[in-house]
Amino acid sequence: LRALLQVDAGYYMQERSAQSLPTAYGPDLGSGTNLRRVFLGLQGKVFGDWNYYFLYDFGGATTETPGKVLYAYMQYDGLAPWSFRVGAYPAPINIEDSTTSGDLIFFERNSPSNLQRNIAGSEGREGISVLYTGQRVFGALSLTGNKLGDGAKAYGAMGATAVPNYDEQTAVSGRISYLPISNEHAHWIVGANALTVFNLPNLVPGGAASLSTTPGATAKGSYAFADVPEFSVDSNGTQLVSTGALSASHVSSWGLETAGNWGAFYGQAGYYGYYVKRAGIAYNVFSAASTSSVQTVTPSSNSFNGWYVQAAYMLTGESRSYNAATGSFTAPKPSKPFSLKDGTWGAFEVAARFSELNLNSHKDDPANIVTGWTSTAKTYTYYNTVRGGDQKILTLGVNWYPNSNIKLALDYQYIDVSRLQAPAAVTTAAAPSLAAVNGGQKLSTLAMRFQLAL
Amino acid sequence: LRALLQVDAGYYMQERSAQSLPTAYGPDLGSGTNLRRVFLGLQGKVFGDWNYYFLYDFGGATTETPGKVLYAYMQYDGLAPWSFRVGAYPAPINIEDSTTSGDLIFFERNSPSNLQRNIAGSEGREGISVLYTGQRVFGALSLTGNKLGDGAKAYGAMGATAVPNYDEQTAVSGRISYLPISNEHAHWIVGANALTVFNLPNLVPGGAASLSTTPGATAKGSYAFADVPEFSVDSNGTQLVSTGALSASHVSSWGLETAGNWGAFYGQAGYYGYYVKRAGIAYNVFSAASTSSVQTVTPSSNSFNGWYVQAAYMLTGESRSYNAATGSFTAPKPSKPFSLKDGTWGAFEVAARFSELNLNSHKDDPANIVTGWTSTAKTYTYYNTVRGGDQKILTLGVNWYPNSNIKLALDYQYIDVSRLQAPAAVTTAAAPSLAAVNGGQKLSTLAMRFQLAL
Amino acid sequence: LRALLQVDAGYYMQERSAQSLPTAYGPDLGSGTNLRRVFLGLQGKVFGDWNYYFLYDFGGATTETPGKVLYAYMQYDGLAPWSFRVGAYPAPINIEDSTTSGDLIFFERNSPSNLQRNIAGSEGREGISVLYTGQRVFGALSLTGNKLGDGAKAYGAMGATAVPNYDEQTAVSGRISYLPISNEHAHWIVGANALTVFNLPNLVPGGAASLSTTPGATAKGSYAFADVPEFSVDSNGTQLVSTGALSASHVSSWGLETAGNWGAFYGQAGYYGYYVKRAGIAYNVFSAASTSSVQTVTPSSNSFNGWYVQAAYMLTGESRSYNAATGSFTAPKPSKPFSLKDGTWGAFEVAARFSELNLNSHKDDPANIVTGWTSTAKTYTYYNTVRGGDQKILTLGVNWYPNSNIKLALDYQYIDVSRLQAPAAVTTAAAPSLAAVNGGQKLSTLAMRFQLAL
Repeated sequence: LRALLQVDAGYYMQERSAQSLPTAYGPDLGSGTNLRRVFLGLQGKVFGDWNYYFLYDFGGATTETPGKVLYAYMQYDGLAPWSFRVGAYPAPINIEDSTTSGDLIFFERNSPSNLQRNIAGSEGREGISVLYTGQRVFGALSLTGNKLGDGAKAYGAMGATAVPNYDEQTAVSGRISYLPISNEHAHWIVGANALTVFNLPNLVPGGAASLSTTPGATAKGSYAFADVPEFSVDSNGTQLVSTGALSASHVSSWGLETAGNWGAFYGQAGYYGYYVKRAGIAYNVFSAASTSSVQTVTPSSNSFNGWYVQAAYMLTGESRSYNAATGSFTAPKPSKPFSLKDGTWGAFEVAARFSELNLNSHKDDPANIVTGWTSTAKTYTYYNTVRGGDQKILTLGVNWYPNSNIKLALDYQYIDVSRLQAPAAVTTAAAPSLAAVNGGQKLSTLAMRFQLAL
Repeated sequence: LRALLQVDAGYYMQERSAQSLPTAYGPDLGSGTNLRRVFLGLQGKVFGDWNYYFLYDFGGATTETPGKVLYAYMQYDGLAPWSFRVGAYPAPINIEDSTTSGDLIFFERNSPSNLQRNIAGSEGREGISVLYTGQRVFGALSLTGNKLGDGAKAYGAMGATAVPNYDEQTAVSGRISYLPISNEHAHWIVGANALTVFNLPNLVPGGAASLSTTPGATAKGSYAFADVPEFSVDSNGTQLVSTGALSASHVSSWGLETAGNWGAFYGQAGYYGYYVKRAGIAYNVFSAASTSSVQTVTPSSNSFNGWYVQAAYMLTGESRSYNAATGSFTAPKPSKPFSLKDGTWGAFEVAARFSELNLNSHKDDPANIVTGWTSTAKTYTYYNTVRGGDQKILTLGVNWYPNSNIKLALDYQYIDVSRLQAPAAVTTAAAPSLAAVNGGQKLSTLAMRFQLAL
Repeated sequence: LRALLQVDAGYYMQERSAQSLPTAYGPDLGSGTNLRRVFLGLQGKVFGDWNYYFLYDFGGATTETPGKVLYAYMQYDGLAPWSFRVGAYPAPINIEDSTTSGDLIFFERNSPSNLQRNIAGSEGREGISVLYTGQRVFGALSLTGNKLGDGAKAYGAMGATAVPNYDEQTAVSGRISYLPISNEHAHWIVGANALTVFNLPNLVPGGAASLSTTPGATAKGSYAFADVPEFSVDSNGTQLVSTGALSASHVSSWGLETAGNWGAFYGQAGYYGYYVKRAGIAYNVFSAASTSSVQTVTPSSNSFNGWYVQAAYMLTGESRSYNAATGSFTAPKPSKPFSLKDGTWGAFEVAARFSELNLNSHKDDPANIVTGWTSTAKTYTYYNTVRGGDQKILTLGVNWYPNSNIKLALDYQYIDVSRLQAPAAVTTAAAPSLAAVNGGQKLSTLAMRFQLAL
């Protein structure tokens, strides 16, 4: 039986000028409180070689949701160091991903890592994996599908319906890492990863009209790259960087990363690339006034990238320790738990992180088509620009661990989102121009977390 | 503490011609994966004679839903072999119904049994029961109500709403079975059952206009007979046979069934009848051009039926054993659990099933009324046809039980649905004719299940 | 590990004349069954001074909902009798509030107490509290926020959305009580409480048009006072008394209460006041035919009140005992548990309650403005009347406790709601008059509960 409770309270301090942004761009992020995670877990072993793990969450990012499955898998360990796992779980994608929620240094995983894991992994992802957990090598190769609850009947007999899926997502992902240094004072891990979604969920049934042939229809496959600003008390879950839904035929990503500790010091960094091959979109294209024909335009494929570096230092001398089973590091254990009687205070940690996630691609690309033509004016639609925004976040944090079950954290973030609003179609009799209206903002946040982990 | 995990992956192989069917008839069943069941259970006893059982499910057929109650009951056993139970649980309806989910031979209960249990029983049904669990006789008489979560405020304060209920369903159901043979080599059980819903959930408040008097209003009571094709990875939960909502005043069903094992061989069969007494529907009926009056037409009552036969054989010699507490059989326990060290492989089972569920009634009945009349043409509405379809399924399966907690299953299904699409109203100046447009299809499925049961 | 199961069945006996009321006023309350509470709890202690408590509910008032958090908190007890608690839990508001669900004498908390606790407390409320639990004094001071699941993304990735929150509710509440008498035969407690919501959840983003300046916009803050009639099997959750959403800038409440036992006799009573400071509402106000200007009208602030008295007597001599940790009383423990063998029958209790909740304010106040003006007629809108209704309920109950885990309850209620329907705008060329159409009714209910508490 395991449990994790994270109680968050936070304030967003936005510029006054942000108020004039459209709602989707976050004019007013909602300060408040949030039970970020309320985990109930069950772990065990049957017949020696078969392990299982169930983990339910009753909390939620941005707003708490009813109890749902994060992990529910069975695993065969009879051929160690090889393991075979099937069920729902976060297929190992990167180091930050493999660090469990209770062991994170900051409130949320950094945006570049988080974006990557959400593509084909993260909690509740159905899949089957082969794992290799050696002393110096960690490897994982996974075939993954939809996340739990995706699809039309999410609330089944009870009323609400989500977007239907005709055939689910299929992806392959792999992560490998190696430890050049592993001794009692220091660990150093280097790693690489890659994933590709070769089958996006089908949003229309086979045989139905799709956006690639019929203007206004639903795309057969699409994908949106987006993330919250590494903090999610805002109950509207506003994502300051977001490409919106991109018509897509497949999506992939890769990364290089490293992490290590040297006594009480801990450092971690990574670089990730993201790629989407765009699918065609059909338009009514005008060749003269009132004369149009359906044409399929395929936007240029898009590449995005992100990177981060983060470090922590235990003022009280403990260290984060390497966990060979996950290929990542765990939270420190205080050597002197807090006790009024003994006059001991537990452990203290200071930490800093910088991350950048750039979701712009062809952001000033003026490629357009004429989707309207009256006698005097033409309407120009820009189809190539993807203005997801460029998000830079500096986070400073201090963590107090009264004992190995309790943690109190205080984090400050400075967030700088440089972003243009998505261009609207332009109707003019003159030469058209691609608009460049600000959709970004600068803000800072201050947040506290109370955590209990069993 | 109990747990059950079922991880399903499956593919639907449909004819190309199915693509032209309307969406409700399943033009593209979604292949993919599904956590069919993620059970967490709690069972115990207080003060000797009082038992309780809580069972929560975080998985779901077709798509996973948030955690919900399947069983939550308390039971008094102080007068054994009589028991008194109250709460939410599947009121015993038939043998397949009484076989717990982890003990099923195939992925899903057969459609005829499943249809019957869903009328007044199945998981999450509120009720009160008297049970008799003797050595040779199993009996149950139940008064049941709504299923949990039915009604208007299913998601209460949180947003979504379902169809409101003004007064809930009330039904009586009974199951009785007898064992002519019960020895260490063989068990043979024969049984009968019946149920009647004498009070369907009221969909309109007392005093409000109802479909039986006012064209276009909501029916006071209605019932839809439908089932998925004995396999439910399709995240849209498409039901290939479905009568649609039928205006109804009451619904009933009965069945005859048998089951037994003879050493490693197991067989089971059943025949069920279903009946719905239709309630009146009001129409604007035209007696001349532009001259209409409201008339109530009561469709003919409908009878449907279904039957199945299924058999399994343990290649490794174990047998399914009879459970007197439920009046049904449990999964075999492998005599030699899988072990690489010992070179033992657990137990293997082969199985086959054939089922037919016929939800057609008056399917070619041309009874009609005139619901439109212009100078030249009349509109004819057919009110008697119920074209739910006739579904035949052949299932072949092989099960591997590495040990008593783990099961891997591979199933192949051939599904033949013979069905006409529901007729539209016909507007013509000539003699009208009842259309007969195909709504059925043939398909096969291939599926795997990984199961952990604690 | 803790559990609570409450299985309710109930019937509403309404006057025939109620059928002509509009739906919101309860023309047909739905009789039926309900799993009122299906609790699963986890309680424990780490490192001596740190307590935690998780409580999940899979049942629900009016209709069962998926599993949700009621309690999830951590507490530091290292400075007893002072405690510090953070997480989600019902911040202590009044005596009835502090009585746990399994210890209630009747089916539901009385309406006056329930209304008060729902403003800034009740299960699932996020907060931080300082508690003082002495032998003769119980005190609690809390800073509370939203309830869990409030806000836009309640069903997050899964589909449904609720009303978005831009900045969450913030409130302060305090409860204090003192025991003048505390001995083995009797306990007597007197108490007072107060709460104020100084920050209602923002329903529009900062900078957006709000109802206080723009006709037809959404209010920045609003609050609705309402309650079900102390019984909630009706799956539509109809609230017979309800003010509807009132534009508001802040809400507060206070109360005086007492409770005590004298051997087998138990009594409890309380009086509460509720106050809402109204926020302005903008209208298009006409000064002549076809001539209007936007004007802001601020309705008069509203005061409401409620009171109750309840008593119980144990026929078998046991007594309700005082719990210093919560400042309230717990259910009696049968001295001779029910046993057919021993011929003992457990404990029996009879109980009665009377409560009144008056949610009328300015109910006949004819203050109005002209919101339409044609040549011949003006439209008058009444802005000051709040016709929530005056609800009086007499409850009679008998409880059987076969043992300390099981309880069976039978309750009869007589409910008298005196209420006018909210006035519509009046369009007339003559002098306008404020309509007084009946919106109330008299009814009685009969209900049974089966309860298991572990």
